[in-house]
Amino acid sequence: MYTIEFEPVGRRGQCPEGESLLDCARRLDVDIVSICGGVSTCKHCRVQIVSGSVSPPTPEDSATFSETQLKENYRLACTTYPQSDVKVLVPPESLSAPQRTQVEGLELRVEPDPAVRCLEVQLSAPSLETPEPDDQNLWNALKETYALNQGRMDLKVQQDLSSRLRSLDWRAGVALRESEIVAIGADSTHWIGLAADIGTTKIAVYLIDMKTGETLASRGLMNPQISYGEDVVSRIYTASKSGENAQKLQALLVDALNDTIVDLCSELDMDPSHVVDAVVVGNTAIHHLFLQLPVLQLGMSPYVPAVRSAVDVKARDIGLRIAPGGYVHLLPNIAGYVGADHVSMLLATGLDEMEGINLALDIGTNTEICLNCRGRMKSVSCASGPAFEGAHIQFGMRAAAGAIEHVRLSGERVEIQTIGGESPIGICGSGLLDVIAQMRNNNVIDSSGRMNTHPLVRTRDGRKEFVLVERSDNGDITVSQKDVRELQVAKAAIRLGIQALLEDAGVTEKDIERVIIAGAFGTFIDVESAVTIGMLPPLPLERYSQVGNAAGTGARLALISRTARRSAERIAAKDGYIELASIPDFNRKFAAASSISWTTAD
Amino acid sequence: MYTIEFEPVGRRGQCPEGESLLDCARRLDVDIVSICGGVSTCKHCRVQIVSGSVSPPTPEDSATFSETQLKENYRLACTTYPQSDVKVLVPPESLSAPQRTQVEGLELRVEPDPAVRCLEVQLSAPSLETPEPDDQNLWNALKETYALNQGRMDLKVQQDLSSRLRSLDWRAGVALRESEIVAIGADSTHWIGLAADIGTTKIAVYLIDMKTGETLASRGLMNPQISYGEDVVSRIYTASKSGENAQKLQALLVDALNDTIVDLCSELDMDPSHVVDAVVVGNTAIHHLFLQLPVLQLGMSPYVPAVRSAVDVKARDIGLRIAPGGYVHLLPNIAGYVGADHVSMLLATGLDEMEGINLALDIGTNTEICLNCRGRMKSVSCASGPAFEGAHIQFGMRAAAGAIEHVRLSGERVEIQTIGGESPIGICGSGLLDVIAQMRNNNVIDSSGRMNTHPLVRTRDGRKEFVLVERSDNGDITVSQKDVRELQVAKAAIRLGIQALLEDAGVTEKDIERVIIAGAFGTFIDVESAVTIGMLPPLPLERYSQVGNAAGTGARLALISRTARRSAERIAAKDGYIELASIPDFNRKFAAASSISWTTAD
Repeated sequence: MYTIEFEPVGRRGQCPEGESLLDCARRLDVDIVSICGGVSTCKHCRVQIVSGSVSPPTPEDSATFSETQLKENYRLACTTYPQSDVKVLVPPESLSAPQRTQVEGLELRVEPDPAVRCLEVQLSAPSLETPEPDDQNLWNALKETYALNQGRMDLKVQQDLSSRLRSLDWRAGVALRESEIVAIGADSTHWIGLAADIGTTKIAVYLIDMKTGETLASRGLMNPQISYGEDVVSRIYTASKSGENAQKLQALLVDALNDTIVDLCSELDMDPSHVVDAVVVGNTAIHHLFLQLPVLQLGMSPYVPAVRSAVDVKARDIGLRIAPGGYVHLLPNIAGYVGADHVSMLLATGLDEMEGINLALDIGTNTEICLNCRGRMKSVSCASGPAFEGAHIQFGMRAAAGAIEHVRLSGERVEIQTIGGESPIGICGSGLLDVIAQMRNNNVIDSSGRMNTHPLVRTRDGRKEFVLVERSDNGDITVSQKDVRELQVAKAAIRLGIQALLEDAGVTEKDIERVIIAGAFGTFIDVESAVTIGMLPPLPLERYSQVGNAAGTGARLALISRTARRSAERIAAKDGYIELASIPDFNRKFAAASSISWTTAD
Repeated sequence: MYTIEFEPVGRRGQCPEGESLLDCARRLDVDIVSICGGVSTCKHCRVQIVSGSVSPPTPEDSATFSETQLKENYRLACTTYPQSDVKVLVPPESLSAPQRTQVEGLELRVEPDPAVRCLEVQLSAPSLETPEPDDQNLWNALKETYALNQGRMDLKVQQDLSSRLRSLDWRAGVALRESEIVAIGADSTHWIGLAADIGTTKIAVYLIDMKTGETLASRGLMNPQISYGEDVVSRIYTASKSGENAQKLQALLVDALNDTIVDLCSELDMDPSHVVDAVVVGNTAIHHLFLQLPVLQLGMSPYVPAVRSAVDVKARDIGLRIAPGGYVHLLPNIAGYVGADHVSMLLATGLDEMEGINLALDIGTNTEICLNCRGRMKSVSCASGPAFEGAHIQFGMRAAAGAIEHVRLSGERVEIQTIGGESPIGICGSGLLDVIAQMRNNNVIDSSGRMNTHPLVRTRDGRKEFVLVERSDNGDITVSQKDVRELQVAKAAIRLGIQALLEDAGVTEKDIERVIIAGAFGTFIDVESAVTIGMLPPLPLERYSQVGNAAGTGARLALISRTARRSAERIAAKDGYIELASIPDFNRKFAAASSISWTTAD
């Protein structure tokens, strides 16, 4: 009997000797596509073995995968048999229920004023009488039409200039970034921009119309670096070990973005070369891994970033395939564990411009929180851990089809709602918040989190568990005492972060006028449940607002507005940083914050 | 019997069946190093077969060369036997007499004010109390020490920043280009710059001290593109045929520069990463081939450059290995056949600042001439051809050891001077000018260039030839009637160019107050001989000055002076261009200009 873990769904279970990965996945309700029914003819059930050992490749595998893929342990799940505990990555295309990654966020409320302008010009063909060099010819036309002074032209654009102008019959569309020409196309070219929010676990990608600011296409995907560790600390460790590792981690991100750009562009009947600008945000570690900046010092006290400032790099210098001369802009970081995604979230929510006392937080594997107390901004980062993503929770899973996302308990009656309305296969973060809040409300657990006697609480192998869903086929879905403890630790970190900011500002919870909850996870939680378990302060519910992926929205803003880029710089410079681990009396406060009954200190 | 041609010496001769390349080279006085005496033990006589077929590689070849080298037809000359007419490239290291390429030029007379400044700073190590991000830490120190505002930092510098600052114990030397940090080293780093003049045939490379402007090392080498044609037209044709060709031609130049940088740096006990800035000049075609810009339109009417403006590119974008963030600056071009090297020459000679009527010319395979007539500057380009480099001349060769460079004839007595004082093996350009001038002075040829009866003129195979050196072993060195004709065509192009500029300005030859002769070839010619054969106007000799490689000097100036870069822009914008082929009555004028007696029209 081996333990098998399916990523990115985050589903774990037992697999008896002799059971194929496909059968095991089905039994655990991981919905791998298999049209032929497991007789290895449809070749759809492709998976990657991330760790552990399995049966050797079959002739079907060899016929299906390239040499490189075989070396990277790609297999057909239907003919692969575990020979140890195994971690399996199910690529998106092999999953029948589309992975649910939040890309929606706030609407963009700015007048487009992008760093890259898109202009049309008409040139005159050169002749022996006026043998105008091609570059001068173009600059002259830009001067005549737009009163622009001569600037620079990217080398790749220069290398293509003469043939391009001639094939376009001297009528061209020009993408001008500040004073540099970064692309030339037909005068009718529809220029687009890329915004990406790279989270530790998930990535949100947007393609934006550079003229209108409209979001033309978007997609959520998993961060492929997850195969190198669920949290950033293990990735920092991996990247620090060798330049090769750092390069591999960087390439994983860029390859994922490149593939997504190709897909989204083809949906729009466009080409990646039409993407003339890009903005990427992420936490400081992701930011550094993406640019292949040094990360060793991020993992050691005093945890300083290599680079705090906003960065502009040629996309080609990091392998991102967009327009030949296009740049990638990265918003500034604040500190080692408060990064560009936090700045982006603050930019999108407008927290820095609010009057009074306001709080914004982006809940995730790391939760960043910012308090704007009458114009004075301070941020804190809390290691809330991956419990909200389903990790370390017995029946935990990510927010994918079949995940229990909402729970109501009345006496012995349990009501659940699953994502996609499908049969329940596990519990995602918002479901976990709900069930534990309901358990507390119904006195299934006490304020310390200990399970009481209750008709739905049973003891198995000497351990108490709460039966959430009874199932005849695959066994029941339960919440263990340990699951409750995991959640307590995660929520305590967040509550303590809020508390630290308030103490630093000399105000109390009840003074908070508004709490903005950002991020994919935060969008789907029941705020009342979060308050019940003491993750968030017990404020009137109308003071809370859930704004979706605000970091992604900030990236989109910075893509289409130079004003937004300047605002981000101002926010990063203005926002102070508190090191949570260095607050006095940390351990006692942490213990207090982990209490389920701990509602307010005010 | 096969014809063998040895490059870069430019020596041709016959090779009987069964004679090795080494023996053939020795017989023709091409001085290939062979310490073992041709028994293939010393492995010094390495050559590359550029065209034609030879005996297959021997076991000695396999032991000496890499697979790639063998595929590129590298062989030991001592065990290689021609099987057809063969063109052989003798690499510099296999030549005993160092190739003589002029790198000397005018002294630099400017106060250094380079685009790249070299600064030293002391930082404070970050702590938990002041966890300053590394980039901010550096900018703060630059602000404190030099009152500099924060600018940008190259990505490669950022990628190395954290480990570099720590290994240097927070004391660093910074190379700052305008507002961008392009390199970081020890505070004691000796930063240097690269200047290169890439000619159609020869390349001059200089390493310059960025603080003092002093030339620390220099080297002349052959342009390896010569294997794709002696003139730029054939290289334009080759590069236009495919992107692969264009890339190959580009890589040849960059590889040659990279190798030279490594060599020169090691002479100075430095490292290529200390080279923080570079300036490259060349004619428009070379400029375009070096940047892999489109050249097809350069070869077709109306012969327009893709790029006229000065160009700044990251060295890494074209494969040049200097400091990680270093740039290459290319001076502006003027027209399709008047390029950045001409601008550089004008910059170095200061022609644009001279009062009155002054002429400057750089004689080469293409000869560019500029007339500054009372502040009005016009240039012309003449296809003078490769005769001055020894091509198409029976005993012609480049200016290498053993070349006859000066000749005096009195009656039947010939006096010669060879380069390096070695036994004569051929005639280089300056020797050819001399001998034909002497032949005219002694009435061996008439004003039309036809050979008269003379004791030293003999007839062989029905063709007249002038015996310059009698040799018992390798046959006599002679000048043929055809050689005279070749020189007449070359010199006519130059004289006609001068004439066209004067006519355009409405002045005459005698009005010229000063003639500046630039370029390696121009430095070694006897001006009196050049006047005698009618290549240059018959002005008092004191009006002529020979200034060496002025294009190289201009490149060095632009490297250490931003003022010089601005001057170059001004010169390029100011200098007009005359298309020689479009002047009225071209053919008649050309015929007149080819007369040996054609001294002046004034």
